[in-house]
Amino acid sequence: MDHARPKIVVVGAGFGGMWAVKTLSRAPVDIVLIDRQNYHLFQPLLYQVATAELSPAEIAEPIRSIVGIYDNVIVMLGSVTGIDTNARKVLTEAGHAVPYDTLILATGARHAYFGHDDWEKFAPGLKLIEDATEIRRRILLAFEHAENETDLAERRRLMNIVVVGGGPTGVEMAGAIAELVRFALAKDFRNIDPRAARVILVEAGPRLLSSLPPDLSEDAKRRLEKLGVEVRLDAAVTALNADFVEAGSERIEARTVIWAAGIQASPAGEWLGAKCDRAGRIFVNPDLSVPDHPEIYAIGDTAAAFDKAGKPLPGVAPVAKQQGVYVAGLIKQRLRGRASVKPFRYRNYGNFATIGRKAAVIDFGWLHMRGLFAWILWSFAHIYFLIGFRNRLIVAMQWLWAYFTFQRGARLIVGRRQE
Amino acid sequence: MDHARPKIVVVGAGFGGMWAVKTLSRAPVDIVLIDRQNYHLFQPLLYQVATAELSPAEIAEPIRSIVGIYDNVIVMLGSVTGIDTNARKVLTEAGHAVPYDTLILATGARHAYFGHDDWEKFAPGLKLIEDATEIRRRILLAFEHAENETDLAERRRLMNIVVVGGGPTGVEMAGAIAELVRFALAKDFRNIDPRAARVILVEAGPRLLSSLPPDLSEDAKRRLEKLGVEVRLDAAVTALNADFVEAGSERIEARTVIWAAGIQASPAGEWLGAKCDRAGRIFVNPDLSVPDHPEIYAIGDTAAAFDKAGKPLPGVAPVAKQQGVYVAGLIKQRLRGRASVKPFRYRNYGNFATIGRKAAVIDFGWLHMRGLFAWILWSFAHIYFLIGFRNRLIVAMQWLWAYFTFQRGARLIVGRRQE
Repeated sequence: MDHARPKIVVVGAGFGGMWAVKTLSRAPVDIVLIDRQNYHLFQPLLYQVATAELSPAEIAEPIRSIVGIYDNVIVMLGSVTGIDTNARKVLTEAGHAVPYDTLILATGARHAYFGHDDWEKFAPGLKLIEDATEIRRRILLAFEHAENETDLAERRRLMNIVVVGGGPTGVEMAGAIAELVRFALAKDFRNIDPRAARVILVEAGPRLLSSLPPDLSEDAKRRLEKLGVEVRLDAAVTALNADFVEAGSERIEARTVIWAAGIQASPAGEWLGAKCDRAGRIFVNPDLSVPDHPEIYAIGDTAAAFDKAGKPLPGVAPVAKQQGVYVAGLIKQRLRGRASVKPFRYRNYGNFATIGRKAAVIDFGWLHMRGLFAWILWSFAHIYFLIGFRNRLIVAMQWLWAYFTFQRGARLIVGRRQE
Repeated sequence: MDHARPKIVVVGAGFGGMWAVKTLSRAPVDIVLIDRQNYHLFQPLLYQVATAELSPAEIAEPIRSIVGIYDNVIVMLGSVTGIDTNARKVLTEAGHAVPYDTLILATGARHAYFGHDDWEKFAPGLKLIEDATEIRRRILLAFEHAENETDLAERRRLMNIVVVGGGPTGVEMAGAIAELVRFALAKDFRNIDPRAARVILVEAGPRLLSSLPPDLSEDAKRRLEKLGVEVRLDAAVTALNADFVEAGSERIEARTVIWAAGIQASPAGEWLGAKCDRAGRIFVNPDLSVPDHPEIYAIGDTAAAFDKAGKPLPGVAPVAKQQGVYVAGLIKQRLRGRASVKPFRYRNYGNFATIGRKAAVIDFGWLHMRGLFAWILWSFAHIYFLIGFRNRLIVAMQWLWAYFTFQRGARLIVGRRQE
């Protein structure tokens, strides 16, 4: 590599980071891409791994095999522990100090328990592949234990599944779990009837999918209920342990609880001592640079950015992707000597959530779409956006298979040994 | 279920147990199938999960989805801790006591370290899905660390991979790893050249694949060497730790060591206080029943059985499968009142080992086959024997993909977080 060329360091190989790298791949710069994992994860489909519909490798692609074709990119597997902004170096756990001229922070988020970190072990969230296989393990094991359980109260507890949080992830999880127990597991057991399992979705606010228009929230609720999901609104969780969830005024006995109620940004804001919102996202300038650090950009879940109306941008893949492309384009323009640039504007092509395998709701702003056609549109969009040809094809095949047979191929209990 | 019908308990859902259940599925008996895992594993392809060619779900099928169509089978996820032969009950860790009239023990084997159990953490073996993903994690992480390593001696240590044991598993692992580093990883790194990695196969005996004829051993060795594998014969391992392997008179510095050198049967023999061979396999009667326990059968890796010439039967899937079918047939005959039965005879349709993605050796007894044609035959046989239609199709697709592109789709580092 040419050591006179500007050094761009990108931390995080999610949608934001990958698209920044891709956009800069032909520019006269040297890029180092750092991630804790060796793969790019298609997070929007992670709930399908958790519900045994897809395998991890089908929604994850090794970073090196994506960027291997770009001569100006070095990939580094490592965990960032801090940033030396004076020396302009990214510090890693393994003791490396990676120098940068420009730094793009695309470090993402983890789920947050709002001060109740002790809830995590009872109610895992869904961000990493390990989270998804752990949730899959818990759901499937609960039914295995229920099958052998003679105490009827305990059997009921094992067959109750609570999903906390009525945003897109919670809605999609609840719908997929309801279908898993109602169809895929239905004939698997002798002593229990999985269709008798209860799937309860609890949401603290007055409606599901609060980022979508009320009519779509209402539609999603109706469709979930048709799948057998019990929806509780205005039901904030006040207690949570191995035996039950207290939500609103209700105590729900359940052995399996899944957390989809909130996220906390990575500590990138702390590394910089930057001003952050409550979720830990850095308040960025209109060009997504970090105040006082024109050489550092924050994108995706790392950034608190706003639209023209002053509304915060949602923490979804398209925002991260567009921000990655925008920042990369900005860097290229500045290399060419252009000083003034337009601020980042998010182009919203539609917000959506899917409900099971036959319905989705999509908000295009000018059009609200729902039902089977919305689901088909969503499927095509997802397969199209999946990075990597191989996965696109295999995910399509798995979906077709699951669709026509109601089977779930990835119904494996792996990881920790059962007690 | 009819409680007057004979109760058959099958412990273990490997090849032996599954074929016994399948063969008994139309008989007037009630079957309980107990396994510690919720899936049947196609072990012969496990090395391909370890070398990132296949995903776990592609070689594993939920037991319940295989036997769900049989009305007379109950599946129980559980770990057996002992057998009360007087009361005729199988005892599980969860405290269940499962009554039987006839018991089939198909409990399989784990790898054995010949009194060096401390070697296991440095040199994992390959029996469970978790073993395979752990080995995959170690191999891929070694290259990630080598890429960031500036100390050249340490970098070399990270890029040396030792496979201990020159049986079919060791030969297949070594060949698959050599191809992984030579082709799939070749373009992935900037600072290291994975093709410079050394793959060393050490075998204590004088030749590889000792259960095959010498000419095929010689052929396998030559083909492995062509793939870049260094083969060491008459090289028993005398020391093994995080830094090196001592094999024969040589000290090989290596961070990644894989154990394929021997197996130890499950403790089924101890449960019964039965006479066992050195590997813990129960010496069975010619009809595979356990001496003094005509109602208990041991099959597969649980049994020490012999052919007409007095040679021990190998611990391979076809033996287990044929024994499962045989014992199930015997039970059916006895139900019909037939007292005398023919002893078990193994029909050997050929022993084989594959070497990478273009060659195999097969011993048909009357014919020794090698090279590409043997590999194609092996591929078809494997796909044919894979249980479950879906997997058959997807494995075929993955293979085609890997074959034509040299890509490895399942190159994910999951499980434990890197240090």
